[in-house]
Amino acid sequence: MKRFKLGNNLQLSQIIYGMWRLGDDSNTTPAHVQAKIEACLEQGITSFDQADIYGDYASEKLLGEALRAAPQLRERMEIITKCDIMLLSEHYPQRKVKHYDTSAEHIKASVENSLTNMAVDSIDLLLLHRPDPLMNHLETGAALDELVSSGKVRGVGVSNFKPYDWALLSSAMNTPLLTNQIELSLLHSEPLVDGTVADLQRQGLHPMAWSPLAGGALFSGDDTATATLRNALTQIAGEQSVDITAVAVAWLLKHPAGILPVMGTNNLERIRALASATRVELSREQWFILYEAARGCEVA
Amino acid sequence: MKRFKLGNNLQLSQIIYGMWRLGDDSNTTPAHVQAKIEACLEQGITSFDQADIYGDYASEKLLGEALRAAPQLRERMEIITKCDIMLLSEHYPQRKVKHYDTSAEHIKASVENSLTNMAVDSIDLLLLHRPDPLMNHLETGAALDELVSSGKVRGVGVSNFKPYDWALLSSAMNTPLLTNQIELSLLHSEPLVDGTVADLQRQGLHPMAWSPLAGGALFSGDDTATATLRNALTQIAGEQSVDITAVAVAWLLKHPAGILPVMGTNNLERIRALASATRVELSREQWFILYEAARGCEVA
Amino acid sequence: MKRFKLGNNLQLSQIIYGMWRLGDDSNTTPAHVQAKIEACLEQGITSFDQADIYGDYASEKLLGEALRAAPQLRERMEIITKCDIMLLSEHYPQRKVKHYDTSAEHIKASVENSLTNMAVDSIDLLLLHRPDPLMNHLETGAALDELVSSGKVRGVGVSNFKPYDWALLSSAMNTPLLTNQIELSLLHSEPLVDGTVADLQRQGLHPMAWSPLAGGALFSGDDTATATLRNALTQIAGEQSVDITAVAVAWLLKHPAGILPVMGTNNLERIRALASATRVELSREQWFILYEAARGCEVA
Repeated sequence: MKRFKLGNNLQLSQIIYGMWRLGDDSNTTPAHVQAKIEACLEQGITSFDQADIYGDYASEKLLGEALRAAPQLRERMEIITKCDIMLLSEHYPQRKVKHYDTSAEHIKASVENSLTNMAVDSIDLLLLHRPDPLMNHLETGAALDELVSSGKVRGVGVSNFKPYDWALLSSAMNTPLLTNQIELSLLHSEPLVDGTVADLQRQGLHPMAWSPLAGGALFSGDDTATATLRNALTQIAGEQSVDITAVAVAWLLKHPAGILPVMGTNNLERIRALASATRVELSREQWFILYEAARGCEVA
Repeated sequence: MKRFKLGNNLQLSQIIYGMWRLGDDSNTTPAHVQAKIEACLEQGITSFDQADIYGDYASEKLLGEALRAAPQLRERMEIITKCDIMLLSEHYPQRKVKHYDTSAEHIKASVENSLTNMAVDSIDLLLLHRPDPLMNHLETGAALDELVSSGKVRGVGVSNFKPYDWALLSSAMNTPLLTNQIELSLLHSEPLVDGTVADLQRQGLHPMAWSPLAGGALFSGDDTATATLRNALTQIAGEQSVDITAVAVAWLLKHPAGILPVMGTNNLERIRALASATRVELSREQWFILYEAARGCEVA
Repeated sequence: MKRFKLGNNLQLSQIIYGMWRLGDDSNTTPAHVQAKIEACLEQGITSFDQADIYGDYASEKLLGEALRAAPQLRERMEIITKCDIMLLSEHYPQRKVKHYDTSAEHIKASVENSLTNMAVDSIDLLLLHRPDPLMNHLETGAALDELVSSGKVRGVGVSNFKPYDWALLSSAMNTPLLTNQIELSLLHSEPLVDGTVADLQRQGLHPMAWSPLAGGALFSGDDTATATLRNALTQIAGEQSVDITAVAVAWLLKHPAGILPVMGTNNLERIRALASATRVELSREQWFILYEAARGCEVA
């Protein structure tokens, strides 16, 4: 499994295990969570993606229970979590509207909460989950810098930011932003051509990709374009003896920016197969065959 | 009334009185214009927004008549005006098409004209009214610089510019551009998320907002979304004993960039209430309740 | 004919003769190609635009045959060519999909091929034809730099790039990018207001315009807007005793960025008239009359 440097103090595995559905599993015992983590580690997948809000504020706690039961796992893992989305939830009955909060007060409280939930001393990578139209970049940037200098957070990044959001927050920070986790897949490939990826690539940074399988739409979509794409994926998958998931992820791995896809599944068998994407060899022509099938037309 | 620094030599009141409809009033006597100005000044509204073209080239003259009648007002005011739109008008019968003119010759002539019209020695802030696709940035930038060094204009900005228009003009000027007056309101909030405001905020600059009440659409719009928004505004207005205008403007004032809304009304009672927006306290949740009502959906 | 400097070592004539349809002519003999070149040179049109793929990989060879027959022409010409599009073609039967290739290997091979095809020792200006979503900017930039230092290419630019594509590739090059050849015409004028031209203008660079007559749509389009535009063009053309082609091109020439339109026609009479566009004087109002006719509405 390839590993990428994000800044000076952090390395992540190219494939990242996403824990947003940890609580959807019928088995949420610490032992079962531990089994999932170990299935990842055995393949070199050492990076795990969380957010305060995942599972209606429950996923971090499920990870925390597993780490309390098997504390030796922690040092073999890089843990990513996020903050700033304020979800409507029965855990916050006084909340009136879904919103964002990038105030220093909220970010710091959210990090403390995440540390407690996950039973860890520090977060390897903290991401702002969404750009906040009310962000006071000076306040937010200073809060993030402080979290890094306190050691509670080893590195900071963002998610779903556009280049100008990035430029705004960066301008107010001493700590460099390390990554931008964006929606990116064959069925959502605009960031490859709208400047979002180019802006990171220019800075030598690695984008993270959420929904690298387009939330399953690659498999279930029944329109002609998706069916054509599925056929193209199936043919390559057959040639390389992998499933089409691996080919769809390999399409992202082929990109020279060094994209880190976040893969989430609760099925242990599928977890054990996550690394297979790294063994797929796509030629440049195969990459464009998939790209054009997904776009529904050839390139200009 | 909060005041904001724009560059080293200019301070504006956060709420700016807009004079684009000065000539629409049934009473356009100098005494009545003076009464409006004094109603503003009493509330700390010291900044007044004009343009050469307002009122079909008549508004600047109405202000000028008032200032001739009451010259003591001038030193208590900051006067903003604009140039570069060439309106089809009976005052310019030879003109064949509405167009823009950012030539040095036109900008300088327009400023001279505005000085005469308004009976002032200098303009506090001159804005290019619209980005001109034929702008020769070297010529335009030099002309603006010259107007500043001559003292005829104390500061320069733009209106309706995108970040790349701004970068182009800035690159050719010694004088810094001080602000960008853009359309911004609950019903036109894209500049908050498309980089226009972020680009100013990063530079520590304050956007001005025109049509902060969406040209009245907030009040008259009868679609469901606008009705929902009006209900949300009405509820907050009731709680804080102000009218919904004040709440809609307070929504802009809450933004950390320090937005300066340009408010225009000929009604003396309403003029006397303009500052009430500054007394509204919106919580972050209330801000998002209004934002989501206006968008018609919750944030992502 | 005005000439523009692109970097320190290259000057182009403002009007460029486009050779993409050289093979569509009924007469493709070296003598006839030579006659076309000479008709250009007589008007001061010294710059000629090619691409590896033009005429299904045949146009460069037609030029090469003419230069072998009349080698004295070469030193009076600047030759532009392009690479990176991989066309589906019977010349490449093994190719499965139209795609782009910005690998060092392909770019260098493509240049060698172009040199052989055109029977020249060096290319005056090499353009990447399309932004490649798989571009490894470090590899591509180094390959382009090498081509310049080897002398095989005198200057490098791009085509159809957006500002962020440009920033990405530039960041990895020692050689400056000299131009961006974009689609630009009265019927495709967005680049004048979406930042594409502004970004070049800010850097003091001259855009090249492909399809400056909108691929003939200016003449054949039968919708109301195009008919209105044609009427406006016809009126000005009548006043200045030129054809409407010259007026449409003059509309581009009026822009302060110094746009270089690429004009392609196989008709010798029309070739002999290409320079007439440079003699058209458009006033600012005429420019906006054409702009607004093409947009279908007046400016804001």
